[in-house]
Amino acid sequence: MTNALEVTLPDGAPFIDYTREFDYPAARVFGAHVDPDTYAEWIGPDRLDTRIDVFDAVPGGSYRFVQTEGTEEYAFRGVFHSIRPAEFILQTFEYEGFPDQASLDFLRFEDLPDGRSRLVGHSVYPSLETRDSFVSSGMESGMAAGYDKLEQLLAFATA
Amino acid sequence: MTNALEVTLPDGAPFIDYTREFDYPAARVFGAHVDPDTYAEWIGPDRLDTRIDVFDAVPGGSYRFVQTEGTEEYAFRGVFHSIRPAEFILQTFEYEGFPDQASLDFLRFEDLPDGRSRLVGHSVYPSLETRDSFVSSGMESGMAAGYDKLEQLLAFATA
Repeated sequence: MTNALEVTLPDGAPFIDYTREFDYPAARVFGAHVDPDTYAEWIGPDRLDTRIDVFDAVPGGSYRFVQTEGTEEYAFRGVFHSIRPAEFILQTFEYEGFPDQASLDFLRFEDLPDGRSRLVGHSVYPSLETRDSFVSSGMESGMAAGYDKLEQLLAFATA
Repeated sequence: MTNALEVTLPDGAPFIDYTREFDYPAARVFGAHVDPDTYAEWIGPDRLDTRIDVFDAVPGGSYRFVQTEGTEEYAFRGVFHSIRPAEFILQTFEYEGFPDQASLDFLRFEDLPDGRSRLVGHSVYPSLETRDSFVSSGMESGMAAGYDKLEQLLAFATA
């Protein structure tokens, strides 16, 4: 996979920074983040199914989705602070199993030459301990698997 | 003023931590944060007047207010991620003059003996530079003046 997810965990600052390139334009990668049916197809690791409860990807809108694995359920929710098509999403993100430990997630979508694009993410946590808990929960492999599915969905839609 | 604002700026972490005690219960201090007319009376430094554009203090609600000083206008906006009456507010906060540099603000309201309470705030910024910009803009004196006004409003409403 040439478009691998790259994650950076700064020492001492409660951030997760990441980039992921795609063989598709920023508008299409952005679209997969704001369309609920598409989002449910790719978000998270392969073993989980995603059910969307609420997904109103507009400034001031809310979202909530539930990931299931057998009888286990993992619910996530947040609000969209800013949405600029094909360019920028700023949203909160909370795993309900870790209440009140929300992050603030900045997603920038940048076009590259040859119809490619780059997603640049910056997630800000309320403490270093919270950041490290998310990292040790297997977040990076789940993100990587999700973006691989996203790229496959775009390939399929293009084919 | 015995109930002075205390602000802590951790070295190297993009946080502003603060506490402020009040001679009134948590429910009343919380109420002054979610009622738009009351909020407009106390938020910010004395020299600014506040006009509320939007203020829907519920989980998933939005707010926007404009502070004016003569012909100058300063607009602020955000979304409420969590609201638990008399206990907790989790919201985003953006000064529109510094776009996309939103913070995530955690406000905890705690009752103390003798009908007093404590507000514990934790604001998380997307970078240390953003945090320091807010600090150098006179944020602390503006917050202190605002909480003094809030306490006076509660005293007036009680008298």
